Amino acid sequence: MTPIEIALAEARAAGARGEVPVGAVVTDAEGRVLARAGNAVEARQDPTAHAEMLAMREAAAARGEKRLADCTLTVTLEPCPMCAQAASLFRIRRIAFGAYDPKSGGVEHGARIFAATSCHHVPEVTGGHRESDCAALLRDFFAALRD
Amino acid sequence: MTPIEIALAEARAAGARGEVPVGAVVTDAEGRVLARAGNAVEARQDPTAHAEMLAMREAAAARGEKRLADCTLTVTLEPCPMCAQAASLFRIRRIAFGAYDPKSGGVEHGARIFAATSCHHVPEVTGGHRESDCAALLRDFFAALRD
Repeated sequence: MTPIEIALAEARAAGARGEVPVGAVVTDAEGRVLARAGNAVEARQDPTAHAEMLAMREAAAARGEKRLADCTLTVTLEPCPMCAQAASLFRIRRIAFGAYDPKSGGVEHGARIFAATSCHHVPEVTGGHRESDCAALLRDFFAALRD
Repeated sequence: MTPIEIALAEARAAGARGEVPVGAVVTDAEGRVLARAGNAVEARQDPTAHAEMLAMREAAAARGEKRLADCTLTVTLEPCPMCAQAASLFRIRRIAFGAYDPKSGGVEHGARIFAATSCHHVPEVTGGHRESDCAALLRDFFAALRD
């Protein structure tokens, strides 16, 4: 599976657990998976337990290092400002995300974390990976909640 | 001790452990301490282990709730964008911080998290509490590193 497919699988699994379906994976320079995670805000009753935070913290812990300078964070949804800033603190090299998030995103929208001149480390960012699949998961999840 | 004195004590303890000296405390509407923490980035090799993140997560865990809507976060340094966004996600009512942080702050500087129109929850914020004491701790810590 490609990284975005792994992230999608994590997102689907999160949705099946009643979490907002977002998934993330951290891969190293050789494409090896260091950590993968789905959103766990409800299970942990912790609003910081976004998929990206869990995957980056687990990847760093697996390595015993606080920096992930050669790594790519792949995630199904545009990161929020907390996760974007965390990616900067982890020195993540690249971020590849799926769906854009005009409401809560912090990369292309809102606080636009990496556009601040005081942002000390700016990853390369690309959005729109498997965008329709990533967005459909979220749309279907919230539609089901409203029914 | 007042909340800022507790935060200062946590900051001093963090500095003594070789961490950047920042401390935080979460208090409820009655002023009871729910959680207190110092920066633990080096000890945990986790760049997200900022004092505020640890204190808010511990406070929520202690309550078994993901929201801290009646709570005040008191911290010796202006929160970074990650911690500011996390405070919004926890629905923190008030933030009281000590020193301003033009270099890495995300409240009065940089990404200015709470100024984004898409920020769903904006705490009341006051800065400058015991400002000189909070700033001196950081200044002395970095001066010692350079020596």
